[in-house]
Amino acid sequence: MKIVPKNKGVFTFSRLHSPVLEVDLGETLLLETEDAVGGQVKDESTPLEKLDWSRVNKATGPIYIRGVKSGDTLVVDILDIEVSSTGVILVVPGAGALGKKEFKPRAKIVRIKDGFAHFDGIRLRIRPMVGTIGVAPEGDDYPTGVPYKHGGNLDCVEICRGARLYLPVFIDGALFAAGDLHAIQEDGELCVSSIEVEGKILLRFEVIKDARPEWPIVEYNDHFSILVADEDLDRAVEIATEEAVGALMRANNWSFEEAYMFSSIGVRVAVNQVVDPKKGVRVIIPKEIVSIQHLLKREG
Amino acid sequence: MKIVPKNKGVFTFSRLHSPVLEVDLGETLLLETEDAVGGQVKDESTPLEKLDWSRVNKATGPIYIRGVKSGDTLVVDILDIEVSSTGVILVVPGAGALGKKEFKPRAKIVRIKDGFAHFDGIRLRIRPMVGTIGVAPEGDDYPTGVPYKHGGNLDCVEICRGARLYLPVFIDGALFAAGDLHAIQEDGELCVSSIEVEGKILLRFEVIKDARPEWPIVEYNDHFSILVADEDLDRAVEIATEEAVGALMRANNWSFEEAYMFSSIGVRVAVNQVVDPKKGVRVIIPKEIVSIQHLLKREG
Repeated sequence: MKIVPKNKGVFTFSRLHSPVLEVDLGETLLLETEDAVGGQVKDESTPLEKLDWSRVNKATGPIYIRGVKSGDTLVVDILDIEVSSTGVILVVPGAGALGKKEFKPRAKIVRIKDGFAHFDGIRLRIRPMVGTIGVAPEGDDYPTGVPYKHGGNLDCVEICRGARLYLPVFIDGALFAAGDLHAIQEDGELCVSSIEVEGKILLRFEVIKDARPEWPIVEYNDHFSILVADEDLDRAVEIATEEAVGALMRANNWSFEEAYMFSSIGVRVAVNQVVDPKKGVRVIIPKEIVSIQHLLKREG
Repeated sequence: MKIVPKNKGVFTFSRLHSPVLEVDLGETLLLETEDAVGGQVKDESTPLEKLDWSRVNKATGPIYIRGVKSGDTLVVDILDIEVSSTGVILVVPGAGALGKKEFKPRAKIVRIKDGFAHFDGIRLRIRPMVGTIGVAPEGDDYPTGVPYKHGGNLDCVEICRGARLYLPVFIDGALFAAGDLHAIQEDGELCVSSIEVEGKILLRFEVIKDARPEWPIVEYNDHFSILVADEDLDRAVEIATEEAVGALMRANNWSFEEAYMFSSIGVRVAVNQVVDPKKGVRVIIPKEIVSIQHLLKREG
């Protein structure tokens, strides 16, 4: 099994990066990852005003995946996630859903043991997930802190062990990278950070040739989720609804009107996060209703 | 058991309405309700351009509840919901998450049998819920189609059998009304309507004296949900987050910073609907973390 150490990372998703490794389809790969603040906060007295913000949200990679071409879908199986025994949560004035309020920068170290995180006497079962995961984008670079069509800072709780992620490929080899593990996050990620942890992600890649999704798709349990991001949450929901209704039309040979009707009773809107430079929503469609082929677009 | 027939209804929540009935705390009450379009669409060929829109979203009531005063919390237990054997879903240009697109007005009659709804060969288990439920508001009247602090068109899937709803009381007797049952709705209610059905709601009222919530609260299974509505979804999330963080501070004697941190890992943001005049979100907090007392505000 190939291993990529956590110092091999990038702060942008870019077509211009040189890959740190090449892998084959079907091969398992272990990525070691830094926490979202690059390990800069080791205790609660760390002066947050001195953090080097150019070192946050590192994604380990990029990885060149042989056999994957522009126009394909990169299929990423999240086989396992291992998290460190401590994590950190940060609040920073100006950031998060209540960023406009007046408050102090503050960090809390959270201990993780036997599958539980301990926050001030409250014990919460951990649900490790990958915050940042993506490929080189179609055009200009994206900072790793931003979610968009290429993936990026998706902060979707469903990107966890057992999930399968479908990403559009814009350059041969895809140039995949991932990082920013969370021991626990809830939908919304309201304060801007979660329990940010170092860790390891065990992955395997497959490909679907000559078709790709418009936005990242997660397959998890009994459903597919289409992940859409926009500066405006209302607009993100509108785009996501259009994607879902299109898939329903293709899957069932429905008119727009029929698919639109069905979306009220068969498509669930959920929030990934409201705190990144683009806010993220997902629309959840049962696998009984659509298959992955209905969610991909064939060129030409 | 007292019964209110479906013709006894209102199209606004208002302090000025005369109650159709008085009930005592602890008494069970059966409300019969019209569907959201007032039974005007009985088959798919009904010309929707001729609908009388002044007859939509009728709420059965209002009910005067003895022993409930302004400043209290009205506690509403949803004991049971019964729905009719057919429902209707509508799409109307200009309405819903994709209201800007060009499409035709269209209605679909959905058959409901043995606990399942049948939409074009797809069978979905029904999950009956109350769309519109509320009390007389603090100031001006609200049309029954609008959700706000007094309740109204909340369109929250959690307002179903077994749920307990907490509403702020602004006038003695509360002047409670409810209607607009949905056989199935998903979070978002994307096309603007759900499976709209006639039916019956079995209810019982209790009171919490001298304290009330800022926004409606649903207690369901293992959690409380605070229901917030605003024209802008981003703003609704911000208000809801502030409510949740306030409750976390009261429940745990936390500073703002600690409660804000915890909100990322202990408070889940979800969407009720994005299609009413005010859009609705809910923030979900486990009962292990807060009790109802932390969610209410005591006057003075």
